[in-house]
Amino acid sequence: MGRRGFLKRAGVVGAVLPVAGGMVVAACYDDPTGGPAAPGVPTQNVQPGAGGTPPAAAVPAWQKIDEDHQKGVVDFLKNQKKPLTKGKGMQELPARIENGVKVFDLTIDEVNWEISPGKVEKARGYNNQIPGPTLRATEGDRVKINVTNNLTESTAIHWHGLLVPNEMDGVPFVTQKPIEPGKTYTYEFTIRNQGSHMYHSHHNSADQVNRGLLGAFIILPKDPASYPKYDKEYILIMNDSLLGFSLNGKGFPATDALVAKKGERVLIRWMNEGMLYHPMHLHGMSMEVFQRDGYPISPPYRCDTIDVPPGNRFDCIIEATEEGVWAFHCHVLSHAEYEGGFFGLVTVLAVDGDKFKVADLLATV
Amino acid sequence: MGRRGFLKRAGVVGAVLPVAGGMVVAACYDDPTGGPAAPGVPTQNVQPGAGGTPPAAAVPAWQKIDEDHQKGVVDFLKNQKKPLTKGKGMQELPARIENGVKVFDLTIDEVNWEISPGKVEKARGYNNQIPGPTLRATEGDRVKINVTNNLTESTAIHWHGLLVPNEMDGVPFVTQKPIEPGKTYTYEFTIRNQGSHMYHSHHNSADQVNRGLLGAFIILPKDPASYPKYDKEYILIMNDSLLGFSLNGKGFPATDALVAKKGERVLIRWMNEGMLYHPMHLHGMSMEVFQRDGYPISPPYRCDTIDVPPGNRFDCIIEATEEGVWAFHCHVLSHAEYEGGFFGLVTVLAVDGDKFKVADLLATV
Amino acid sequence: MGRRGFLKRAGVVGAVLPVAGGMVVAACYDDPTGGPAAPGVPTQNVQPGAGGTPPAAAVPAWQKIDEDHQKGVVDFLKNQKKPLTKGKGMQELPARIENGVKVFDLTIDEVNWEISPGKVEKARGYNNQIPGPTLRATEGDRVKINVTNNLTESTAIHWHGLLVPNEMDGVPFVTQKPIEPGKTYTYEFTIRNQGSHMYHSHHNSADQVNRGLLGAFIILPKDPASYPKYDKEYILIMNDSLLGFSLNGKGFPATDALVAKKGERVLIRWMNEGMLYHPMHLHGMSMEVFQRDGYPISPPYRCDTIDVPPGNRFDCIIEATEEGVWAFHCHVLSHAEYEGGFFGLVTVLAVDGDKFKVADLLATV
Repeated sequence: MGRRGFLKRAGVVGAVLPVAGGMVVAACYDDPTGGPAAPGVPTQNVQPGAGGTPPAAAVPAWQKIDEDHQKGVVDFLKNQKKPLTKGKGMQELPARIENGVKVFDLTIDEVNWEISPGKVEKARGYNNQIPGPTLRATEGDRVKINVTNNLTESTAIHWHGLLVPNEMDGVPFVTQKPIEPGKTYTYEFTIRNQGSHMYHSHHNSADQVNRGLLGAFIILPKDPASYPKYDKEYILIMNDSLLGFSLNGKGFPATDALVAKKGERVLIRWMNEGMLYHPMHLHGMSMEVFQRDGYPISPPYRCDTIDVPPGNRFDCIIEATEEGVWAFHCHVLSHAEYEGGFFGLVTVLAVDGDKFKVADLLATV
Repeated sequence: MGRRGFLKRAGVVGAVLPVAGGMVVAACYDDPTGGPAAPGVPTQNVQPGAGGTPPAAAVPAWQKIDEDHQKGVVDFLKNQKKPLTKGKGMQELPARIENGVKVFDLTIDEVNWEISPGKVEKARGYNNQIPGPTLRATEGDRVKINVTNNLTESTAIHWHGLLVPNEMDGVPFVTQKPIEPGKTYTYEFTIRNQGSHMYHSHHNSADQVNRGLLGAFIILPKDPASYPKYDKEYILIMNDSLLGFSLNGKGFPATDALVAKKGERVLIRWMNEGMLYHPMHLHGMSMEVFQRDGYPISPPYRCDTIDVPPGNRFDCIIEATEEGVWAFHCHVLSHAEYEGGFFGLVTVLAVDGDKFKVADLLATV
Repeated sequence: MGRRGFLKRAGVVGAVLPVAGGMVVAACYDDPTGGPAAPGVPTQNVQPGAGGTPPAAAVPAWQKIDEDHQKGVVDFLKNQKKPLTKGKGMQELPARIENGVKVFDLTIDEVNWEISPGKVEKARGYNNQIPGPTLRATEGDRVKINVTNNLTESTAIHWHGLLVPNEMDGVPFVTQKPIEPGKTYTYEFTIRNQGSHMYHSHHNSADQVNRGLLGAFIILPKDPASYPKYDKEYILIMNDSLLGFSLNGKGFPATDALVAKKGERVLIRWMNEGMLYHPMHLHGMSMEVFQRDGYPISPPYRCDTIDVPPGNRFDCIIEATEEGVWAFHCHVLSHAEYEGGFFGLVTVLAVDGDKFKVADLLATV
């Protein structure tokens, strides 16, 4: 599968999980090394309440914890087949070409954003998406971005990480006037530096960015050979503020799984748009971190827990050598799990191989 | 402009901004790519209240936000011409030479410190400054620091990062008795290691340091050729606790701008004396980070957002290749902006070039 | 002293401090450079209250601060001779060998854990220890770990950093069923990757890990020559949540000192199992950081303040070149000191040399 093909599905895995056979959860239950004999899954242990007692009260607390955890995982699997929440951020926005210029149109609107099932927040989105649509260009491109502000307050966009002329930098009263409600403003510049960059509001930004006015701006190098080879690309934007803990605008179980075939090289473009630090821990494999803010890390370093400070973007490659479903989550555990199970900054890397097939797992839910 | 000349103005830019022509803010309003036609700056849009209604109440909320943001930027520009707050920290303290020893005299006093216009806090300062006066020496120097404690509680000074004899390390009950109220204590040692170091209280330090008992101690290498060349030097000390969010003891708009001429190499010595992390994002250019705690980072790495943990000091060089006014702020956005505009950990890097001149901009306020 | 000998005492220094002569605290009081003439230690300055006033109220506040700080340091010294708290975590757990497999037995129990003198918390421990017993194996070893859950809720163990088969990864409902109360579960796998790894609960983990279900799993390389030489080894696990701020399960003054002889190379295996960042500052010397999560940092970097994000493990070497007692603490000062003195993430590196002997210091308390 070629590199071009993956460029289109940056940032999401969606419902298009590969097909094959063998189920991870069940497989584990057959563990030959001495797992518990008890067959009962927690839901089988529920003791229904008698009389007027509400049934829930009759479930021992520990079984309720297990049930809730299991439900979260099952919901997450279901979410890979059919999204459990409305709204999908980071859809790639194709550029119109006008006189050799790549043109992107962005609107800014109030949106109600469902970050996790049933949790809907008053938010703001570029093109009604959170994060906004992913923009993509190549070094040397001339780009024009038309921004229409449909909010009831002013705004402006900063092209975070991009080397732009000062007047295109998007800081109200420093490099431009704010874009007032109802107005359209056009940014135009020539792309100078490759990298995993971002765009976001730079006006009343502690509020506007935290409510959703942010997105990825991927700049490909003019010479593709200058960038490591990869088979799959994911963009992962961490957030933690007014809308809750999220990856790409969704909290577990509404997050998208990362999927790969055994042996593939998986690129992750990490971006932290939050207020906090989120050391993301990958189970079972390591990450090779080779780029920070679009500049090389030389030599790359390897780790199983990557720490991207707010405002930074780190690029890493995972060699998907280990098949199975591997948890991938923030290791500030209170950003990832509570008595009710996983939430927030949690996803998995699912690696299809000879014995394990993602599709078989999904067929079980 | 020689290196020596800049050593004297470490840490501040003060009112001595270079002179030239072309105004950034105005220039932006002339943006040819399709900016808003509306000429009205927000203050022109104010609808005065009728009758007994207070005028302020009649300003739509979004215009009030814009006005406040604009006022902050204007105040910041004014602050570069004439400080808006009383008190200036980090003044270089010249050493007296006694028998070949460099002698510094420090007093410790209660001070009222104006961190941002009108925000005055009960604080403690070395020589009535926050941060304390900047000390500077060279590897191999013998230094003596006389410390007079005018507080009503004991204290001690730790020379953070400096390799000193154990008994000079400044930890009460571990390496010395505390310096009691009214007493004078003398530290004396030979300088062994170059780097961007610090000095601060090590007694009741969560309170004393956070109230202002901290400063920079810059050690130059014996062989200047062992350190990268630079044209300008800034020291930036981040803080966040009892006195509020600050750079060099001041919060925006009372922070000092960094200024450079196009093409200059700007050295920044970063120091985090706070309790939190402050990933500082530079617009428009990158930083080359080459030293941590006085030890080389090999090879240096480049980034647009630098993250200096509390207690660390990172040295970086910015090549000031892009003219204009570039925001430079903590990307934990809640440390830098709110509905009322920028505050706290915000400054700019202003680069004088052919088209943009800082002096012209300042002439507008 | 050989490397093997130190492997047994990983993570603790205990009461076995080396013996010799010259007392640091006293020595400092003889400082020839102009220390305070006043001989009075703070307790000598106490003004007893008159009449019905409680004596404590008559001690000026500043002297009370000094007294409390001094008491903390004295208690810390006493703790090195005889632990001030009940319970010792991280005892090395010898493996049983069964058919060539290294077998470890872990039980999980409710425990009352004394984190600092008098501060006892309801906690959970592996083998009644917090952190749990230190496990140690070598690349290529086959290991089997029998886990008996004596809690009243389910659990599971994740082998953090170890490359294991998916079904051994310890994530309930993803790779296995949870280990229910009263059940025993066996993990078995072959060790593939050296490094400073961890094991901890991966079920309801924001609660279970924070209450103590964590430990160190040290994997030695098959080829010892591939790892830097060292004379002494310490493991330092940082924590900060439900049980309070701690190093290896204890808060100052109940923390263990690190001790070395002048010239020794001291290995520290850092692990952050907390929710926060703890930039640990070493006085007087630097650390050479050469490994992250078991992968090389190339080239190593040096610093005096090391920052290990939650979930990461960093290995560093300190060359113990400077004799004396050197503070070693989190530089988020509110994690290390308050008006009552040091607490939490504080210890020292005590270096025995010609003039300073740890034993002499300890003989004073």
